[in-house]
Amino acid sequence: MNWKEKLKEEIKRARDASFEFSQLATEKKNEFLLILSSLLEEKKDRIIHENSKDIEKCRKNNYSKAFIDRLLLTSERVSKMSDSLKRVALLKDPVGEIFHQDVRPNGMVIKKIRVPIGVIGIIYESRPDVTIEAASLCIKSGNCVLLKGGKESINSNRILTSLIKEALEKTGINSNGVCYMGASGRQSVRYILKMKEYIDLIIPRGGTSLIETVSEHSLIPVIKHYKGVCHTYVDRDADLTMAQEICYNAKVQRPATCNAMETLLVHIDIAKEFLPDMVKKFRDAGVEMRGCPETLSIVDAIIPAAEKDWSEEYLNLILSIKIVKDVDEAIAHINKYGTKHSDAIVTSNKKTAEKFLLSVDSACVYHNASTRFTDGGEFGMGAEIGISTDKLHARGPMALEELTIYKYLIYGNGQIRS
Amino acid sequence: MNWKEKLKEEIKRARDASFEFSQLATEKKNEFLLILSSLLEEKKDRIIHENSKDIEKCRKNNYSKAFIDRLLLTSERVSKMSDSLKRVALLKDPVGEIFHQDVRPNGMVIKKIRVPIGVIGIIYESRPDVTIEAASLCIKSGNCVLLKGGKESINSNRILTSLIKEALEKTGINSNGVCYMGASGRQSVRYILKMKEYIDLIIPRGGTSLIETVSEHSLIPVIKHYKGVCHTYVDRDADLTMAQEICYNAKVQRPATCNAMETLLVHIDIAKEFLPDMVKKFRDAGVEMRGCPETLSIVDAIIPAAEKDWSEEYLNLILSIKIVKDVDEAIAHINKYGTKHSDAIVTSNKKTAEKFLLSVDSACVYHNASTRFTDGGEFGMGAEIGISTDKLHARGPMALEELTIYKYLIYGNGQIRS
Repeated sequence: MNWKEKLKEEIKRARDASFEFSQLATEKKNEFLLILSSLLEEKKDRIIHENSKDIEKCRKNNYSKAFIDRLLLTSERVSKMSDSLKRVALLKDPVGEIFHQDVRPNGMVIKKIRVPIGVIGIIYESRPDVTIEAASLCIKSGNCVLLKGGKESINSNRILTSLIKEALEKTGINSNGVCYMGASGRQSVRYILKMKEYIDLIIPRGGTSLIETVSEHSLIPVIKHYKGVCHTYVDRDADLTMAQEICYNAKVQRPATCNAMETLLVHIDIAKEFLPDMVKKFRDAGVEMRGCPETLSIVDAIIPAAEKDWSEEYLNLILSIKIVKDVDEAIAHINKYGTKHSDAIVTSNKKTAEKFLLSVDSACVYHNASTRFTDGGEFGMGAEIGISTDKLHARGPMALEELTIYKYLIYGNGQIRS
Repeated sequence: MNWKEKLKEEIKRARDASFEFSQLATEKKNEFLLILSSLLEEKKDRIIHENSKDIEKCRKNNYSKAFIDRLLLTSERVSKMSDSLKRVALLKDPVGEIFHQDVRPNGMVIKKIRVPIGVIGIIYESRPDVTIEAASLCIKSGNCVLLKGGKESINSNRILTSLIKEALEKTGINSNGVCYMGASGRQSVRYILKMKEYIDLIIPRGGTSLIETVSEHSLIPVIKHYKGVCHTYVDRDADLTMAQEICYNAKVQRPATCNAMETLLVHIDIAKEFLPDMVKKFRDAGVEMRGCPETLSIVDAIIPAAEKDWSEEYLNLILSIKIVKDVDEAIAHINKYGTKHSDAIVTSNKKTAEKFLLSVDSACVYHNASTRFTDGGEFGMGAEIGISTDKLHARGPMALEELTIYKYLIYGNGQIRS
């Protein structure tokens, strides 16, 4: 068998296993999660050993420090992965929930119930923690999962996947339900993206180019976890101390995350009062700022923003600043340049806030809080597989419920249509 | 401007209008529907006149009788369209529903509310009734709609769209929110399918080749309304009189619909008792039957089924018949050859029924009822824009709720993340 045939066989086996997975008892799934949690602790040395091969290769090939840090597994990080499995075991099983039940005039009973999606393909970069996270959430929600991590993490992912399969076998669950698609690079990704008979959903997690390639080539529905160009709009009626704290937090606390602020919008009437202090605070924190002409006329030593700055996801200590004449201009700017991720308004005016919240077309819209809260854990979901920037099926943080869909069960006693 | 620039301008204007549409008051939307309903009655003669141009052209070009029948508008049919608008006006507005509301430990209030999807493109064949149906359901659910009907219906659709726009204007709603994409053929469809910045969802309605072309070329999420290869499985424990009625109804009552039965599966233990009468009834109704070897050994004058028969959507008085050894074989057959649309079991054994209902991976799974009930009206939705055979966002009949998504509104008082 060549790699294509082998891959197809594996994916078909996962599809076959998906009917069993969809009906697994909650206790069985939790047992698997706890066994896997123990296995990660037991085999920690081997995991770290395999990971070190990946790390060494990346060091030799001069990968960036940030890249290697995301790839690195330490004793502490493996324990964190092990702990996260225990937490997923505690989460409520979404499968089987009855959305509603209706008796039709002809006596038929229609039940709408929550079911797993089926077979989910996760395509991600070289972050071995995603392997465990994605597998645990997919399996807890009754799905089979095809994992395709970055090629630099191959040794780490191979050992982790073999432990996932071992835990499945120990629990008496068909281990074909999890499959690591090790075959080489983009070529195999493109092949996978055509397998619409066997795969129900593709979730790409990673940089812009990965996500664009996947969207472009996929015949399978995709939920994109695209970039977060997040805004904070400081309104005329804002409490400026609160605004300063929220903006500082949104930009500085963890600038590399998708929910960090990339553009600050300021109402013209308070710009002169608000900006000088705010800019000083940012400068002290090492933030490079790029402003519109009005901003430059108020604060100095700021680089002029180019048109492309307004749609840039810096993921770094860089911020674009624009002065707007009112909330409508702020809303229009966000709906034009934003990425439907997370945006905030700071204002004491409830009417202005409500207008902003309803009009900004983003998954998460905040009033008087930092955009940094867009996160499955912070939203009370207990975990997350990512943050959807699409407008179909799921928006914002995706966890167990978002990995399910519904079906209709219809109970009759001989009804026919006239 | 060339047609591409013109089309892009129109689509951009619809995107801009979508922010207004998403916040339209229910009364405003209903007012529009009722005005349009009256307009259709008032302008009936002109509608029929425009339609007759399309009909004449198709007759000259020897289109099939069935094709021309779907295209034809009569006085009665226009009145039916007018009435359907009154019914949509009576339906509950889904927008603004609060799914849940949660106070986080830090005091932030998170509300998950139902919102329109935004801009929806409907690509369909030459059926002018779809123009009115799609526009009314999209607008009632707060969406803007781009309509692209088959080229043979151009005159009919132009007059209908101009009436939709007239009704919007009379209600004081931005008429850019509805746009008929009249530019020529497949070339313009492909162009539209790349406009991911402006369109949120594409719904193709029509034959297999239309849907496959759309799925293959779209960079925008697509919900497929694909074919219905629907099964009825008559179990060993079936009430055979009930089974006969259900099977007859599922095949004969309206064979051209996607929820009609295409394959009959029969348990081997009752096949000799059940099949002869059933086959006679079908034959009397003019049904052509194609059977597996076991079927042929029980009843004669039946054509042998070829492998491709099991995945054929006949949409006609043709039926494939297969004898299976148990419910498991029936389930496996359906999950292999079915299209995740509608499938039924006839049995008096509750355990067998439950196994079938949970294991068959279709949008609608029936116990002791005809698959013909898969329909928005029959499900109590009051209307339908089609039947999804995908497993993401919406399964089965799609109506108003299925044309919406959610967003999170988060209310804080200065919360920042630590």
